[in-house]
Amino acid sequence: MDNLSMLTDLYEFSMANGYRQTITDEQGVFDIFFRKVPDNGSFVICAGLQQVVESLKDFHFTKADVAYLRSLKLFKENFLDYLAHFQFDCKVTAIPEGTPVFAREPLLTIQGPLLQTQLFETLLLNIMNHQSLIATKARRITFAAGDKPIMEFGARRAQGPSSATFGARAAVIGGCASTSNVLAAQKFGIPAAGTMAHAWIEAFPDELTAFRKWAEVYPDNASLLVDTYDVLKSGVPNAIKVFTELKEAGHKPVGIRIDSGDISQLAKGARKLLDAAGFQDAKITASNALDEHVIQSLLNEGAPLDNFGVGEKLITSSTSPVLSGVYKLAAIIQHGDVIPKIKVSASREKLTLPGLKQVYRLYRANTHEAFADIIALSDEVLDHPMDVVKANPIATERHQSIDQYDAKPLQEAVMDGTTVQADLPGVFDIQKYSKQMLQEIPAATQRLVNPDEYPVYMTPRLAQLQEKRGLQEKESVR
Amino acid sequence: MDNLSMLTDLYEFSMANGYRQTITDEQGVFDIFFRKVPDNGSFVICAGLQQVVESLKDFHFTKADVAYLRSLKLFKENFLDYLAHFQFDCKVTAIPEGTPVFAREPLLTIQGPLLQTQLFETLLLNIMNHQSLIATKARRITFAAGDKPIMEFGARRAQGPSSATFGARAAVIGGCASTSNVLAAQKFGIPAAGTMAHAWIEAFPDELTAFRKWAEVYPDNASLLVDTYDVLKSGVPNAIKVFTELKEAGHKPVGIRIDSGDISQLAKGARKLLDAAGFQDAKITASNALDEHVIQSLLNEGAPLDNFGVGEKLITSSTSPVLSGVYKLAAIIQHGDVIPKIKVSASREKLTLPGLKQVYRLYRANTHEAFADIIALSDEVLDHPMDVVKANPIATERHQSIDQYDAKPLQEAVMDGTTVQADLPGVFDIQKYSKQMLQEIPAATQRLVNPDEYPVYMTPRLAQLQEKRGLQEKESVR
Repeated sequence: MDNLSMLTDLYEFSMANGYRQTITDEQGVFDIFFRKVPDNGSFVICAGLQQVVESLKDFHFTKADVAYLRSLKLFKENFLDYLAHFQFDCKVTAIPEGTPVFAREPLLTIQGPLLQTQLFETLLLNIMNHQSLIATKARRITFAAGDKPIMEFGARRAQGPSSATFGARAAVIGGCASTSNVLAAQKFGIPAAGTMAHAWIEAFPDELTAFRKWAEVYPDNASLLVDTYDVLKSGVPNAIKVFTELKEAGHKPVGIRIDSGDISQLAKGARKLLDAAGFQDAKITASNALDEHVIQSLLNEGAPLDNFGVGEKLITSSTSPVLSGVYKLAAIIQHGDVIPKIKVSASREKLTLPGLKQVYRLYRANTHEAFADIIALSDEVLDHPMDVVKANPIATERHQSIDQYDAKPLQEAVMDGTTVQADLPGVFDIQKYSKQMLQEIPAATQRLVNPDEYPVYMTPRLAQLQEKRGLQEKESVR
Repeated sequence: MDNLSMLTDLYEFSMANGYRQTITDEQGVFDIFFRKVPDNGSFVICAGLQQVVESLKDFHFTKADVAYLRSLKLFKENFLDYLAHFQFDCKVTAIPEGTPVFAREPLLTIQGPLLQTQLFETLLLNIMNHQSLIATKARRITFAAGDKPIMEFGARRAQGPSSATFGARAAVIGGCASTSNVLAAQKFGIPAAGTMAHAWIEAFPDELTAFRKWAEVYPDNASLLVDTYDVLKSGVPNAIKVFTELKEAGHKPVGIRIDSGDISQLAKGARKLLDAAGFQDAKITASNALDEHVIQSLLNEGAPLDNFGVGEKLITSSTSPVLSGVYKLAAIIQHGDVIPKIKVSASREKLTLPGLKQVYRLYRANTHEAFADIIALSDEVLDHPMDVVKANPIATERHQSIDQYDAKPLQEAVMDGTTVQADLPGVFDIQKYSKQMLQEIPAATQRLVNPDEYPVYMTPRLAQLQEKRGLQEKESVR
């Protein structure tokens, strides 16, 4: 199978080979962060760390990989030899999966030989951008559904096999209850969910026969797809016949699924028919092109729906299919000296944050009410009170003062070489932690449309360092 | 590593187990087709067949897979035993990769034991929906770029590892010249492309030093990123210094890359400076949030660009990130009798095409000018003249007459059991074939905005069968 260590942009190899020939002693410090939240939301649910750790622990190049790289005639033998005997020698710190995070916060920081840290850029961004994107979309959809469970149904429309599988993982981190994807269910311990397709119905001479055959095979798992011909005239009446037969035989029918038409009206009609026949407990599941807005509308209209199956719009985050996380050099460490680095740009919004940093969530003193995050240099002690500056260079009212707060660090140690230091919890533990963290941030920041901004500050020392380094870079051009 | 045979929606297993218990002799015939073209285009570039064939050839379940499925307590032992000893026993026919295809045409048809054909739905759709989506987007982007090469640069923003890797493959099918993704380059024989990142520049004390060090390591491959500080005041002048040094030492500089700012103005300025310094051959590459429309605008403005690096907007098809291909039952074969099947729906647009079918491309007699496609039953001989009906049930002027045409069948035999019957050409051969096929369809159907519709007809026999089966299904509900 493929070696994901090769899932790297060519230029990472070119630069790594270049560092090997020029500045071999330097350590690099890179941060992963993003500037924009998908769907104009206020936060991203961080995800993908487990796969990052697994990839880095196993980072290696096979003989065939090295031979392929040699064939490109770009790299020196000393570099190819380094790859052939690659030993992961970096420190990774990161914000735990499931944490709601905000623009400009370093989600993951990696420090180690410059050559190595450069090589990981593409793979780490690929994993974290993807899973964080889908976890964030899933959180929007589960938010809209309130306490109704969401089944992730998107495998057939996902952008390739790992998009389906890691997407299902991320969907659970973002609050989904189950997945139709058996591989993801097996791999991550997620309940596998599903009913039947129209093909089952069509494979039999008529709908009633198809339902009866299903009930014979799955007497305690009869969830019937009722929209092959006509939901209210055919599907639900036939389902009720079969449910009645099941009940008489001592079984409890599960419910029905509606996959087309006006879901709201059809669900109301189906609910009446089911209730009148004594099947008040039979659940109604809706699917078909659902997203957070459709689900919210259906529930606002009082559609009596118990579960939702959400496919392509979740697994591709189709209304906002890219999380543009970046991997930026924050410092070079040369013989023990930390040289903070900054990327200036024509666009002031893109100014990066230099130096070794930590992110803190700030709570009103002695409460669980978070009101802001602050990015600090990692050796700083936070003052009370403190004059802080918004991290977004183009924000208004950038200067604020904060006092009477508790601060909780968000980044924690993850790897020191191949030693894994962090807990890597199961997906449902991450989901639970994520829900707790969401309860701590203001409800208004979680609205689907026009959410309140959650402030992210810098400490005065970090703000000064950014300003100073930015000016130095501009000077250097003159 | 993961077994992709498990990348299947749970309900496929549930139905397959159900068929095993109820209708074991039947064969199923399923078609893959789509109804809507991404980005409101008129065609899709078909892709993914090679991975479909590889998946089907290797379709199997490990002991651990079977044990996992047993643990779900849904399936009978006779079914689990069937999976443990799975023998692929289907016939696959398909339209070759790279072919421009249209709504409602069966891209792939699979015939075999109903249980088996049901099991493949999710995986086959996942692969073909993804790769066809990206090949189609790549075709739009390479169309906009004309004869300028496109480098696929999206790995870091792709939706997971296989989205990056198979996406790069599909991008080449759609016309891209190279990829930055080394794994894809290695796996599919694609040229690997790339320059340097801003991190390289920042890792050195100043830009000129960074460029000089690069030129030391890559004297014959000096493509320099010039926008770290200021393209025209710093980047290009420093590049020219280094290019001059390289030239004096007998090397030929490659060029520069601009990754931010007003690409059009910056490229014009850079071109002047390079030309004035005697580097008329140095290429200018643009990157940064490019798509087909931005590239078209840049070229319309006369921006002197030689190459484009296209990232997230290509690799996720971000303006239209889903190809909604479906897998629909076209027939059941019972003791040798073909029973055509149809899915009726509340929405007439969703009516499927029953029976065993072939698709033909119709050319004006003795030319390479295609003017329409026609879907026929597979045992039909096409008449001259012939009264045909548009395949889209909600099209206007559905009835037409055609004459004086040559017909070329599009679907060809691909697999008979695990024997592979079709050629599976390399990606650049597919790309070449795709370009030829595109030259045969009217130019007006290839416009990026408001393309002309390319007609897809049914033969009168197929149209009658669809009508008859549709009425029968409606009857059955009364």
